[in-house]
Amino acid sequence: MVIAGVGLIGGSLAAALKQAGVVDEIIGLGRRRETLEQAKALGLIDLIADSPAQIAGADVVMLATPVAQMESVLKSIAPHLGKNTVVTDAGSTKTNVIAAARKILGPAFSNYVPGHPIAGAESNGPDAARAELFQNRNVVLCPEAETDQAASDLVSAMWQNAGALVVRMDAARHDRIFAAVSHLPHLAAFALVDELAGRAEADDYFSFAASGFRDFTRIAGSSPEMWRDIALANREALLSELAAYRGKLDEITAALDKGDAEALETIFSRASNARRNWGKE
Amino acid sequence: MVIAGVGLIGGSLAAALKQAGVVDEIIGLGRRRETLEQAKALGLIDLIADSPAQIAGADVVMLATPVAQMESVLKSIAPHLGKNTVVTDAGSTKTNVIAAARKILGPAFSNYVPGHPIAGAESNGPDAARAELFQNRNVVLCPEAETDQAASDLVSAMWQNAGALVVRMDAARHDRIFAAVSHLPHLAAFALVDELAGRAEADDYFSFAASGFRDFTRIAGSSPEMWRDIALANREALLSELAAYRGKLDEITAALDKGDAEALETIFSRASNARRNWGKE
Repeated sequence: MVIAGVGLIGGSLAAALKQAGVVDEIIGLGRRRETLEQAKALGLIDLIADSPAQIAGADVVMLATPVAQMESVLKSIAPHLGKNTVVTDAGSTKTNVIAAARKILGPAFSNYVPGHPIAGAESNGPDAARAELFQNRNVVLCPEAETDQAASDLVSAMWQNAGALVVRMDAARHDRIFAAVSHLPHLAAFALVDELAGRAEADDYFSFAASGFRDFTRIAGSSPEMWRDIALANREALLSELAAYRGKLDEITAALDKGDAEALETIFSRASNARRNWGKE
Repeated sequence: MVIAGVGLIGGSLAAALKQAGVVDEIIGLGRRRETLEQAKALGLIDLIADSPAQIAGADVVMLATPVAQMESVLKSIAPHLGKNTVVTDAGSTKTNVIAAARKILGPAFSNYVPGHPIAGAESNGPDAARAELFQNRNVVLCPEAETDQAASDLVSAMWQNAGALVVRMDAARHDRIFAAVSHLPHLAAFALVDELAGRAEADDYFSFAASGFRDFTRIAGSSPEMWRDIALANREALLSELAAYRGKLDEITAALDKGDAEALETIFSRASNARRNWGKE
């Protein structure tokens, strides 16, 4: 097996599969030698690929790089893929990765299984990797019409061996759902903090912020580069979510402007109930 | 001392002052007999006032009811206040409470010291009260031009005895700051969750929400009635914050629409740096 990008996700998958005893040899591929050496020292990978040509013979190639790098990784490995090599990815967006893979792989795209493990990423790098990361977490697979059933089943079994629950879903639907429950909240938090940070009295404002602000804005501390790439990769779905969110903010603003207590309470109650019910799960 | 509203805030203040040994007798005043009986059983108050007339003779009256009830409590106690009784409050908004107090108290307004302890309120009721709640927390006092210096110093000393750090600030500035760092985040979270909850496929969307969503929306589980009242009480400042926030969301939307990676990264980086720096404090 080959893992391109041995950070939190790639490294944790390696650790989980090794712990489950279902892989013989894991070859690490990456841009930074230092990261690969670290992953090898931690026992996550067995070998470091010095060139993409070394992936020949692999049964599975997992792309666990940031989404923005997947196209160039695909280009570099495409000439070296074996006839039966299954390629999969762990990117947060799916339609754009699928479009790139279809274009680059040509007929071999039938062996490509698009995927997205739903697991936290506050920390990063191989030293953050742990075998338990995917335990009982959802992994969404988005096979296309051309996707080979056996390839899809192989990737599904791999994730199940890592402890995950596999869900299959249309890629467009995946991107809409994650635009709503993940990408939009990040943009909304970035917007709130940047708006505040840009003020002359920003320090005074921040000094009175309390625990509610802390929770609400935690995700604004996420990697700017990663979220720039995710936002651009899921641009269409995210623009639609932004429009819906601004529509709801307009509704609240109008109710507040009119002093409409009932309308405000209706919106807040629906939200509060939905959040409390979700929190119970 | 009299405390009107012996819930989390009023009850915790009572507990802290008793622990500090700086009060003789605390009389509880409230709408619900059950809550007062509970507060008495917990040792937070010594006596339950059967009528507002019983507050005569108190050195300090603390209003710790929800903001929307303060006007009616002030009306009921005004005829019974002694010449030297200092009245103060613990409301989340200040200009509206000040306007009501000035109108109702007349010349006695000089003994009114507007205040706001910045302490969490996830739980409520007298059983949530604890003496340590205000330890090292900010309490903002907003004395007006007419406010008697001795009254202001008395309330300041009371909060310091409860372990708090007292900050004095103009009421309008208080309301602007808390509109930005507390009230707006609550509205933004309510908006996001309600928008999602209103969809036909809401359950599917919520089922894929992860830890980022959990943190970002935690405050959307807050009391709808309390936040309806706070929003209306701080309407002007909050409308201005909503406009600024929507302006920033428009900026992000425009950058995403144009595919302007640099503009997105600039905004996300400023926010991420500001959030990480604040988180360190």
